[in-house]
Amino acid sequence: MTKDAPVFDGDSRAARREACVAVEEFNADYCAVLDDGDLMDWPDFFTEDAFYNITSRENFDHGRPVGLVYCEGRGMLKDRALAIAKTSMFGPRYLRHYLTNTRVTGIEADGTICATVNYILIETLAELPEGRLHQAGRMIDRFVPQPGGGLLLSSRIAVYDTLLVPNALVLPV
Amino acid sequence: MTKDAPVFDGDSRAARREACVAVEEFNADYCAVLDDGDLMDWPDFFTEDAFYNITSRENFDHGRPVGLVYCEGRGMLKDRALAIAKTSMFGPRYLRHYLTNTRVTGIEADGTICATVNYILIETLAELPEGRLHQAGRMIDRFVPQPGGGLLLSSRIAVYDTLLVPNALVLPV
Amino acid sequence: MTKDAPVFDGDSRAARREACVAVEEFNADYCAVLDDGDLMDWPDFFTEDAFYNITSRENFDHGRPVGLVYCEGRGMLKDRALAIAKTSMFGPRYLRHYLTNTRVTGIEADGTICATVNYILIETLAELPEGRLHQAGRMIDRFVPQPGGGLLLSSRIAVYDTLLVPNALVLPV
Repeated sequence: MTKDAPVFDGDSRAARREACVAVEEFNADYCAVLDDGDLMDWPDFFTEDAFYNITSRENFDHGRPVGLVYCEGRGMLKDRALAIAKTSMFGPRYLRHYLTNTRVTGIEADGTICATVNYILIETLAELPEGRLHQAGRMIDRFVPQPGGGLLLSSRIAVYDTLLVPNALVLPV
Repeated sequence: MTKDAPVFDGDSRAARREACVAVEEFNADYCAVLDDGDLMDWPDFFTEDAFYNITSRENFDHGRPVGLVYCEGRGMLKDRALAIAKTSMFGPRYLRHYLTNTRVTGIEADGTICATVNYILIETLAELPEGRLHQAGRMIDRFVPQPGGGLLLSSRIAVYDTLLVPNALVLPV
Repeated sequence: MTKDAPVFDGDSRAARREACVAVEEFNADYCAVLDDGDLMDWPDFFTEDAFYNITSRENFDHGRPVGLVYCEGRGMLKDRALAIAKTSMFGPRYLRHYLTNTRVTGIEADGTICATVNYILIETLAELPEGRLHQAGRMIDRFVPQPGGGLLLSSRIAVYDTLLVPNALVLPV
């Protein structure tokens, strides 16, 4: 086994704990980029062939391959980020992520980490300064350990429980 | 000391950290079962003689032994789960747990872990698709390490700050 | 290097993880004190010359040195705690903290830990028993490791996204 091999080579309890810490670090960095509004940096958290989807719990439970946002490949993520960055001429609008209940549900033979995490997204608008619940749900993820350390997402499916999305402009979560 | 002895045999800072990780893993699994609606699996997280209570902060602070849900022993938990599973003929209703601020407040001589955690419960109803705060409070717990690894709850008291519980049907938290 | 030297002497990934665990423990204890209403114990979490500020994201982003609460030195924190404890003759009012997304952004040469964490504050009033979002934002912190173990805050800036603060009485967060 070389130094470049995946670090999570096994699916023991110890490996899952180590993976859980790495996933929590990744998610905190990922959310900070979106919370700060640095949308153009967002695609860098994904692998070249990554899958990204924001979908309702109802659609997800019924296996319907649709979503508010549906991207295959980092190229589509970049297009999406660019489109939003260019068109989002809105007043002050803040979004903040709160991630809890991280679970590593498995580590595959190639080191891929399967994990889930619950999320809350709080939105603050100029016309709604007290803030409100924008989205609540669960992310279902696949992380690929990288040679130099760190992780990249090969798949992120954000499944929201809240059935109404108040704003027309759909930002990534 | 045999292999079956409690793993958290001491109350050092290192033992509390180890216990804290185990508690966080337990709670993430526990919440996933409730969030997925697998109510019949819920009693399996408790010891045979476990105590379970959902009560208001006001009642808790005044030492009143009452609650929305009050169960002594796993048998009562199973009855409760069965009753809800049989009667809950409602439209789509999602509940999701968000647990933060895990604290191990002590480890007793027999290995029992005393811990607390803050919780938010977000509820989504068909007629309330944007979601809302259902409950917010703190869980006060006692965990018993099991011979094969892992933990079971010997006591969980969910103390809610929010004084109104919007829904008549009280699900476990 | 003596036993009294800072424990986080370096800025490696391992040191940051260790620091992250220490910060999470600190924050859970800190919030428990405020959630329990033990306001007089709150200044003990800070160094003698600590800086404490609660300010809006708008002011923070524009570098304006103002805030809802602005304290320089533990003496001012104690004055503040005392003033609130003496004047807060209100009905039942609960506040609960939910901290997520802890990030250690750096460890300085003297061991000082730079970290951020997202926070939600849920408020429950007698006349608002269902609870509501009181504040949502991010804390930007500096922690100084102490000789006997543990940390103290040398600076905490709570930057809230939510632009309206519903209550006149401003408690620390």
